[in-house]
Amino acid sequence: MSNWSSFDIEMMSRAIMLAEKGRYTTRPNPCVGCVIVDDGNIVGEGYHQRAGQGHAEVNALKMLKDKGLSAQGTTAYVTLEPCSHFGRTPPCALGLINANVARVVVAVTDPNPEVSGRGIAMLREAGIQVDVGLLAEQAYALNLGFMKRMKTGLPWVTVKVAASLDGKTALSNGVSKWITGPAARADVQKYRASHCALLTGIETVLIDDPSLNVRVESLGELTTQLGADDIFQPLRVVLDSQARLTATAKLFSISSPILLVSACQYPEQVKATFPAHVSCLVLECDPLGRISLPALLAYLGTTANSVFVEAGATLAGAFVAQNLADDVVLYQAPKILGSHGRNMLQLPDYTTLEQTPSLQLIDERSIGKDKRYILRYNKTY
Amino acid sequence: MSNWSSFDIEMMSRAIMLAEKGRYTTRPNPCVGCVIVDDGNIVGEGYHQRAGQGHAEVNALKMLKDKGLSAQGTTAYVTLEPCSHFGRTPPCALGLINANVARVVVAVTDPNPEVSGRGIAMLREAGIQVDVGLLAEQAYALNLGFMKRMKTGLPWVTVKVAASLDGKTALSNGVSKWITGPAARADVQKYRASHCALLTGIETVLIDDPSLNVRVESLGELTTQLGADDIFQPLRVVLDSQARLTATAKLFSISSPILLVSACQYPEQVKATFPAHVSCLVLECDPLGRISLPALLAYLGTTANSVFVEAGATLAGAFVAQNLADDVVLYQAPKILGSHGRNMLQLPDYTTLEQTPSLQLIDERSIGKDKRYILRYNKTY
Repeated sequence: MSNWSSFDIEMMSRAIMLAEKGRYTTRPNPCVGCVIVDDGNIVGEGYHQRAGQGHAEVNALKMLKDKGLSAQGTTAYVTLEPCSHFGRTPPCALGLINANVARVVVAVTDPNPEVSGRGIAMLREAGIQVDVGLLAEQAYALNLGFMKRMKTGLPWVTVKVAASLDGKTALSNGVSKWITGPAARADVQKYRASHCALLTGIETVLIDDPSLNVRVESLGELTTQLGADDIFQPLRVVLDSQARLTATAKLFSISSPILLVSACQYPEQVKATFPAHVSCLVLECDPLGRISLPALLAYLGTTANSVFVEAGATLAGAFVAQNLADDVVLYQAPKILGSHGRNMLQLPDYTTLEQTPSLQLIDERSIGKDKRYILRYNKTY
Repeated sequence: MSNWSSFDIEMMSRAIMLAEKGRYTTRPNPCVGCVIVDDGNIVGEGYHQRAGQGHAEVNALKMLKDKGLSAQGTTAYVTLEPCSHFGRTPPCALGLINANVARVVVAVTDPNPEVSGRGIAMLREAGIQVDVGLLAEQAYALNLGFMKRMKTGLPWVTVKVAASLDGKTALSNGVSKWITGPAARADVQKYRASHCALLTGIETVLIDDPSLNVRVESLGELTTQLGADDIFQPLRVVLDSQARLTATAKLFSISSPILLVSACQYPEQVKATFPAHVSCLVLECDPLGRISLPALLAYLGTTANSVFVEAGATLAGAFVAQNLADDVVLYQAPKILGSHGRNMLQLPDYTTLEQTPSLQLIDERSIGKDKRYILRYNKTY
């Protein structure tokens, strides 16, 4: 269907806006919104707030029920194809059928090739009119990580860099605090809060000793809607190929999960001192002794939709150089650190411009006195 | 005076706008605009268009005369203190006195400490009310180069850089065409057209063999107002410490003046082949065998208000490192060239952030698909 009415567009826009509200809380589930309309009036709406709790359609139907209204003959706008399987909740397609909805408008189909279209087929078999594809691009963008993972088994990878106008993250001696301003650093917190996993390297942990948690107070307007308990702390992943980390690291003092990835086992006496929220994983190495990033992403993809890489130039550069990054988020401060400074991404010595990363600038804005650029690889999942 | 009326502000704004029209043609003279008002109505206006031709006040008074009007009792708004000396034209202060103007509003005083205030004193001695300082900052900004040169004897130095988001101008093997887009390159032409001198190094000439001229067709709207003959070609200055340049260089084929600066004389048989528009200058060297930039600027300051540096990272970086630059204009393309790429400015190995160039971002905008940043040193002249 392509001749959407302006009313259809307005209702799906609202469903997308509702879906957005789950951005920091639904994972690993997708953000989904639903609006139910009766005779031109919104009679119910809902969104998926948290894995294990009601899906968007269920919450919207519940609103009707709470008002004592029937869904008979209504139209439901959903940002993602209603599910067709029994999981922790019954299939949403069945819920819409049982409620006698007359028409369902779907923005995007289920990304999983094995289930894609089954929810729609179930609705159509029940005699419901189903129209698919309204604001599909916008609805897809709600769940880039979920979509990629469902289709490829791999998480969406966002590489963060903070640098000067001349592309340096620090002076040659490492002096850097702070290149970017407080607004940019608060913006980073939003990225952390919306990713399933936060990845860094052992060098960053040993040198900076960061906590690598989401500081709720930095999330701005979100904190008025969400309490500290509502915020997921991303899984903190540390690449520590030689198993050098000890329990004194500051990140251990915060109790959200930590995954240490190494190429060899940690000594038993060290491992014994790690707190209970720390897991260890041994992965294969490449010929240079670095942990295989494809293997790492395949592992993380079993549970995580998205990975936020906050690492030094070597590890961050490896994701870009190995064509494993989806987005590069660059915070750029209006400073010049000089040619001896540390480069923001360690990359190969390219000999033609065609070899350089084929990133497209998809967003740029001022964040305080700094700039933020979002550069995206032209990949389709 | 500080309580300016909104009418005063409007009239001086207009005078500044008129002065702007001379930006590409007045040098080495300053841009000056003048508006003459009688009883709330503009009766005459003018600007300085070209050295040796009428000053702004003379042109404005001529408009009155052409209309058969008297300047008796009028108010004249001038962006720069009227001159008090006999040059190629009689002093403007005398012209205003003879025309029986009642009041003169001056934006900024003459920058030359030896003559500053004399024009104003001459007017006041003749019984004319003189109010000084209206939109002084804006009027000063019309002539940053002229102002600096009059006060210090040195030209304003603008260093141009075109780089990627990671601060690289080329790959390690020199591949670079084109990093920035056509809009950015056209913008560079406007910078060339508004500077008195264009400076580059011998390496750039030997490798790129540029013409280093102003291409009138790139100046956009200007070309509708100005013909090719109206555009000044900046003095092209090449730093060639070892006197390696020969007459085959492409820049020799364009007949606007060229200055070759070296540390030793060119061989007589080479010099004999240089066209007539090429001059040679021998200057002192620093201990590293590089031409002394302070000596060079002192020389150029005898005739040039402003120098636009379009050079490689070594020479461009030397101006920044030696604290001789006033502006760094950075064109930034949304690309990543990688850590092996060539750095945009060769600078010292700083050990503290306080040692890095203390540049202030004063302007940023999109030019086509690129960004342009103007970074300025906090210097006062």
